[in-house]
Amino acid sequence: MKVLQEKIIKEGKVLSDTVLKVDSFLNHQIDPMLMKEIGDEFAARFQEAGVTKIVTIESSGIAPATMAGLTMNVPVVFARKRKSLTLSGNLYTAQVHSFTKNETNEISISGNFIQQNDVVLIIDDFLANGQAVLGLLNMVEQAGAKLAGVGIVIEKGFQSGGQLIRERGIRVESLANIASLQNGKVEFVAERSSL
Amino acid sequence: MKVLQEKIIKEGKVLSDTVLKVDSFLNHQIDPMLMKEIGDEFAARFQEAGVTKIVTIESSGIAPATMAGLTMNVPVVFARKRKSLTLSGNLYTAQVHSFTKNETNEISISGNFIQQNDVVLIIDDFLANGQAVLGLLNMVEQAGAKLAGVGIVIEKGFQSGGQLIRERGIRVESLANIASLQNGKVEFVAERSSL
Repeated sequence: MKVLQEKIIKEGKVLSDTVLKVDSFLNHQIDPMLMKEIGDEFAARFQEAGVTKIVTIESSGIAPATMAGLTMNVPVVFARKRKSLTLSGNLYTAQVHSFTKNETNEISISGNFIQQNDVVLIIDDFLANGQAVLGLLNMVEQAGAKLAGVGIVIEKGFQSGGQLIRERGIRVESLANIASLQNGKVEFVAERSSL
Repeated sequence: MKVLQEKIIKEGKVLSDTVLKVDSFLNHQIDPMLMKEIGDEFAARFQEAGVTKIVTIESSGIAPATMAGLTMNVPVVFARKRKSLTLSGNLYTAQVHSFTKNETNEISISGNFIQQNDVVLIIDDFLANGQAVLGLLNMVEQAGAKLAGVGIVIEKGFQSGGQLIRERGIRVESLANIASLQNGKVEFVAERSSL
């Protein structure tokens, strides 16, 4: 997605060979107009998939997922990293390990909001080691729902998450796929012409 | 806001005299079409205020704030409850006490994203004791920015937050203002005809 690649080049800060900071438009400050374009792009790519529900994880997945939900006219549910006082009863849960923070969190979604007859699109802001998406996939499986695929705003193609998920036969659509952050420079994986 | 009041009546669950659960459309599952209407309503109410930035707090403020930002064509920044690894340097911070969880959290916003020449609209999903909004106000003051006002999706008018903030001469616009949750029934404060 050209407008997203341009935004990353213009505003992204390469902090190391593995860390890209995009807090001016995606995960601290949010550019709502760009989020709308991102939501439209996810909607276009998955328009034939019969999606009935979008599942994401707090907090940075919420803006792109909600914009996709607006265009696709389906509800969005976000997994919680911390249990809410009113989140109880029938729950789907999964363990998600963060390699960057070196901690494992239990994420949860109320059993009321993913049903067996749902067709789920998972959306998240970043795909790196894939642990968050694997946790969300686990919960979709617990619900017995069908999976349409995974939509990612920025994939770090040089880390293993994308491969881990695609190896399972799951469709992953990344709107920007980063080949390398070496030498302080962002290089993208070339987009397939079919996209 | 009539459509919101109707949604609360239809889907809200009164768990006690003080707790209203609206996780089917606002703070766990999100109804994107309703969030768009909510964003449009905030934009209409604050259209003369010259807003340049919307400030909210993760996670449930993000969806309504981002939709308001889309309509108003301004960026949104969300305060973090937990420090991100890449959130460092110049920070605004505030202590926010949660009476329901009986814990105090430090919330933070990067100093890059609220500037002295900004006109800030604060948006949040709930206003009860007002502690989260007071924390956000504190950070807007630290930045030396101008405040347009506070937009709240659901105010619990029977708790003290709304009064605390309005007493400071701050404009608070609540799209639904709950007078009482007693006897398992939601009663709204009558809307002023000027709205």
